[in-house]
Amino acid sequence: IPLFRTSRCVCIKISDQPVNLKSLEKLEVIPASQSCPQVEIIATMKKNGEKRCLNTKSKAVKNILKSISKER
Amino acid sequence: IPLFRTSRCVCIKISDQPVNLKSLEKLEVIPASQSCPQVEIIATMKKNGEKRCLNTKSKAVKNILKSISKER
Repeated sequence: IPLFRTSRCVCIKISDQPVNLKSLEKLEVIPASQSCPQVEIIATMKKNGEKRCLNTKSKAVKNILKSISKER
Repeated sequence: IPLFRTSRCVCIKISDQPVNLKSLEKLEVIPASQSCPQVEIIATMKKNGEKRCLNTKSKAVKNILKSISKER
């Protein structure tokens, strides 16, 4: 029996590149849970379908979330 | 050639049931685009994997987005 639960986070590397809402095909938000202690935000880019883990603490992400809740 | 582009939104019916972050497995946000004029938010429930389209204008959704950007 393992003493420590293995982390099952989706994101290994977090991108700090700026992203903007218009360049995103979709955004997946996975709340913190028993399997991963932190919120994860995965952006799928329109251009090439590339998935990128975003820094939940970054200003860009905060702005994206804000603009989503503002848009109609 | 069709005169009007057919709407390709993911959500047909929007749920107004309250949801809370802890009951969600994940949240998908699809920004407005040429194929669908409004932002769509699809929640996957932890309990049964059920997918539910959320009302982007609802207070519950605004609160969820807010709590995500606040959490660590």
